[in-house]
Amino acid sequence: MDRNKALGIVKQQLTEHRYLHTIGVMETAIELANKYGADPQKAELAAIFHDYAKFRPKEEMKKIIIEQNMSQDLLVHNTELWHAPVGAFLVETEVGINDHEVLNAIKYHTSGRMNMSILDKVIFLADYIEPGRHFPGVEEVREIAKYDLDTALILSLRNTIQFLLGKTQPVYPDTVLTYNALLLGKKEEKKGE
Amino acid sequence: MDRNKALGIVKQQLTEHRYLHTIGVMETAIELANKYGADPQKAELAAIFHDYAKFRPKEEMKKIIIEQNMSQDLLVHNTELWHAPVGAFLVETEVGINDHEVLNAIKYHTSGRMNMSILDKVIFLADYIEPGRHFPGVEEVREIAKYDLDTALILSLRNTIQFLLGKTQPVYPDTVLTYNALLLGKKEEKKGE
Repeated sequence: MDRNKALGIVKQQLTEHRYLHTIGVMETAIELANKYGADPQKAELAAIFHDYAKFRPKEEMKKIIIEQNMSQDLLVHNTELWHAPVGAFLVETEVGINDHEVLNAIKYHTSGRMNMSILDKVIFLADYIEPGRHFPGVEEVREIAKYDLDTALILSLRNTIQFLLGKTQPVYPDTVLTYNALLLGKKEEKKGE
Repeated sequence: MDRNKALGIVKQQLTEHRYLHTIGVMETAIELANKYGADPQKAELAAIFHDYAKFRPKEEMKKIIIEQNMSQDLLVHNTELWHAPVGAFLVETEVGINDHEVLNAIKYHTSGRMNMSILDKVIFLADYIEPGRHFPGVEEVREIAKYDLDTALILSLRNTIQFLLGKTQPVYPDTVLTYNALLLGKKEEKKGE
């Protein structure tokens, strides 16, 4: 699907603010894909559609999570997590995208997952550091993203977990497992050096 | 086993500093047990032996974790976690204590676990707030422990996770699951009110 057509579809689903965020994610994702060896066209497509379900009513998302047998764990955690797996489902069924690498990058862009693909990492990180993002810690991650994808990811996951703890909110277990796995990977890397 | 005999056994395993900590945990645990309805004698025993394996050589602990088929997950996480399950094993096999409530409270005093018993909670919290402990956040938990066991536990777990994240160290998944489960329990409690 060409960029303009994809943007046209997603624009109808988003607020103006969220659409501008999406453009930022798209540009950042293409850069990161080129730097770290993911397919830039897949990165573009996943970035454009990553927030496709962001403004769907909670009841609709809940229904999809239950009917599609998605991790029921989602239902007891922050509803902010829902738009990612629900988005992947709707992008497949409503938009007709069936590239599973693209769909997975959308599905895991908020929680992360064990054994993330390069494309998953690119979309997760682009969503976190695109130029429209302004929050404590983002500048450090932005800098590190220029030369170390995994460390940038570890820090963004850490910040996300710390943010939730700071508000005494539950932490989605997969996010912690992703953080641990990436840290462990770094440790193994160092041993091998 | 009577208090003096138990203290005599554990004293040989600990440094002077850690022995004084153990006395503090014992006194705090008995208080908490009386307040929240755990058996104070079991609390006393579990508190006395909670750090029994603290100074065992790492190699010995690792061997026990492997041979006793304990969660292999422990091996990739902070070695600080090891003395709790290894301690429960040694307190059973070397000291001859076979009360499983006491052994479980020792086993889970560092990580926590889903569905903690009152005794588990008492030992975990006593270890965190005994009067010899001085670190940021402990005073708040100490205050809350006077009237709300679960909230005190949630905060101590949260502080522990935050401490590890602050040093960009892995976080033991069971600790996060325990934190989440207690938070969810609180939420359900509020709904029921």
